[in-house]
Amino acid sequence: MGKKRVVIVGMGFAGLSAARQLSEYGFKVVMVDRNNYHLFQPLLYQVATAGLEQESIAYPVRALARNWSGTTFRLGEVTGVDFAARKLMLKDGELGYDYLLLATGSKTNFFGMQSVEEHAFDLKSLPQAEQLRNHILLLFEQASREPDQLKRKALLTFVVVGGGPTGVEFSGALRELSKYVLSRDYPEIDVNETRIVLVEAADSLLTAMEPHLRNYAAQKLEKMGVEIRFSTQVVDATAEQVFFKDGSNINTHTLFWSAGVAATPLAGNIGVTQGGGGRIIVQSDLSLESYPEVFAIGDTALFLQDDKPLPMIAPVASQQGRYVARVIQNREDGKNTENFRYHDKGSMATIGRSAAVATTHGYSFSGFLAWLVWLMLHLYYLIGFRNRLLVLMNWGFYYFFHERQVRLITRIK
Amino acid sequence: MGKKRVVIVGMGFAGLSAARQLSEYGFKVVMVDRNNYHLFQPLLYQVATAGLEQESIAYPVRALARNWSGTTFRLGEVTGVDFAARKLMLKDGELGYDYLLLATGSKTNFFGMQSVEEHAFDLKSLPQAEQLRNHILLLFEQASREPDQLKRKALLTFVVVGGGPTGVEFSGALRELSKYVLSRDYPEIDVNETRIVLVEAADSLLTAMEPHLRNYAAQKLEKMGVEIRFSTQVVDATAEQVFFKDGSNINTHTLFWSAGVAATPLAGNIGVTQGGGGRIIVQSDLSLESYPEVFAIGDTALFLQDDKPLPMIAPVASQQGRYVARVIQNREDGKNTENFRYHDKGSMATIGRSAAVATTHGYSFSGFLAWLVWLMLHLYYLIGFRNRLLVLMNWGFYYFFHERQVRLITRIK
Repeated sequence: MGKKRVVIVGMGFAGLSAARQLSEYGFKVVMVDRNNYHLFQPLLYQVATAGLEQESIAYPVRALARNWSGTTFRLGEVTGVDFAARKLMLKDGELGYDYLLLATGSKTNFFGMQSVEEHAFDLKSLPQAEQLRNHILLLFEQASREPDQLKRKALLTFVVVGGGPTGVEFSGALRELSKYVLSRDYPEIDVNETRIVLVEAADSLLTAMEPHLRNYAAQKLEKMGVEIRFSTQVVDATAEQVFFKDGSNINTHTLFWSAGVAATPLAGNIGVTQGGGGRIIVQSDLSLESYPEVFAIGDTALFLQDDKPLPMIAPVASQQGRYVARVIQNREDGKNTENFRYHDKGSMATIGRSAAVATTHGYSFSGFLAWLVWLMLHLYYLIGFRNRLLVLMNWGFYYFFHERQVRLITRIK
Repeated sequence: MGKKRVVIVGMGFAGLSAARQLSEYGFKVVMVDRNNYHLFQPLLYQVATAGLEQESIAYPVRALARNWSGTTFRLGEVTGVDFAARKLMLKDGELGYDYLLLATGSKTNFFGMQSVEEHAFDLKSLPQAEQLRNHILLLFEQASREPDQLKRKALLTFVVVGGGPTGVEFSGALRELSKYVLSRDYPEIDVNETRIVLVEAADSLLTAMEPHLRNYAAQKLEKMGVEIRFSTQVVDATAEQVFFKDGSNINTHTLFWSAGVAATPLAGNIGVTQGGGGRIIVQSDLSLESYPEVFAIGDTALFLQDDKPLPMIAPVASQQGRYVARVIQNREDGKNTENFRYHDKGSMATIGRSAAVATTHGYSFSGFLAWLVWLMLHLYYLIGFRNRLLVLMNWGFYYFFHERQVRLITRIK
């Protein structure tokens, strides 16, 4: 008897780790994604700040399928699921399954503020990162020939919303880009004219971390020249202004939004029970209550551990992917599997060159050592020898020569 | 007395070599381009065939300006020239000049066939190369799930028009991509189903080369599996068909056009005398007859040498750029300059892995040695240590592992 067929939707960290494990168990696996590559999202901000080529953080899924026996790839946009017939519906076809894994990830959450959604940049995809890089460089070009001081100031003001890892990392990288790299490219511009404002609704950055790491991050960013506004909320935006709850506003052409995520729309289109952020509510083995052969994993799944929803981060996704593979293997063997439990191995964020914060196994550290750990772990989790080499090379160039090479405006409207 | 101000429009090979030389002579140089980078066009076909990252063949002009004293960069689209007032008009401003160099290059020439222009791909810019790569990979994705044999065949048929270096290099690279790389990515597709047809109006490829090199190129391509049709002209095209003069046609979704170039439209918008291909007719020192302080160099200039127009290729452009810098320097010194004369150092084209043709100083060679020379010269002319390293790394990976890494569909409609 042949092995069962598992269809996985979404090739992020969750889908990827499930596919690899299921292939090892000998299942037939169909990997479905609307892009033909796995994207290493944690480094998107470096593409947006001219530090990395977009190609270096993407890896073709078919290149993985070559090495993982029993796996195939299907490029396609999912439109729905026929649970009764056990079929995944695609825009241009359908796929039957024995087991279905929903791993479609998350999208940016603008909390219903349409004006913000319309004018803000966010970072979820390669084209977005490239577009943001083009936008930033184009603003510097415009500023370099803008005689009006107020207009120039607005062009060089960047508002970053959200003090989580993405907001912190993007602010730091953008500050270093303008301070060390663009300052030499644009002798017409005084680097002191550029302004980066990091806005956070709570009263600290990186709320998942320990207080002394939060303080380190805030102090380091401020020392680098990033303004931080705590307890501040964005309520409205136009193409040239951002408005805050306290009535104040800032003239800017760049509103970067990293203040929230929600499950991708698919979760709401297939008639399953959703919880906070539109995430799919799952059982203790990550399956759906009504359809035990269907699982949700990663950002799109809502799993309560110790009565709290697990965070939408890569380590949770990877652990859930591997876990579900084991559940399926055990079911085929007629065995039970213990409930899923996330093992927090720590979290980290980089602030700038030689500066990061990290916490793991009860230890917490900051500065150069944390930065080195951050660097090595990210290289380790990148897929493909060549991508690692490319990223390492770019980081080396930046570290030793203060140079970021991808300062290209690839698309001009 | 300060040095005179030279404005150069276009940062291709001609503009670049002029700017570097003028900077050495101590002039004030304003480099103008609508992109913020110099593009190494000879390798665009490798971006289109998933062999190189687009970033590795582009170099920011401002990074050059940092090192070339007296030079600055202005991003902008040129709309015209006010010769009387000595002003270059831009979409968003104007620039006064003492000397003006027009180095705006060439565009693809479809010889007035609108249906072909509408449906064909050509290679003049980075976005075009990325778009073509996306298109090719997307066709393989579609073919991998297309049950109808005729439709699948059309998806996997590629028609390349023009047997010059670009057509030859693109055909060879595309054949190798499908034969060695995509054949492993798409187990659903039989590599024998893919078909590449190279169409040439004359009765040989690479007409600028010696007969035995032309024969070598044609035989090598045919051995690799590229069909060649000599004495064949395209007369019409739709999204799914190409029509030839002899009444025959081919079902294909990909018509690649490299059968002709013409000067960019600017040459026709500024009221100067144009010759064949819309190129600007220049004097023996590359200046314009009516405006001795204005020069045209590179593809956009029409210069007759021994009663024949010089070809539109990079070496002519580079030599003209350096020459004009010397003319300007001599004029400031009240000296004359001998007439421009192009020194042909040879030409080359690569056909595939370890196979190229080259001719230089009366010698001609083919095969591995020619390929090695091609490779080293292209690396040498690429700008930037990092770009060279990146390209070398990619070529190494391809050479030793038959692997092309940039198999990413970065934009899906």
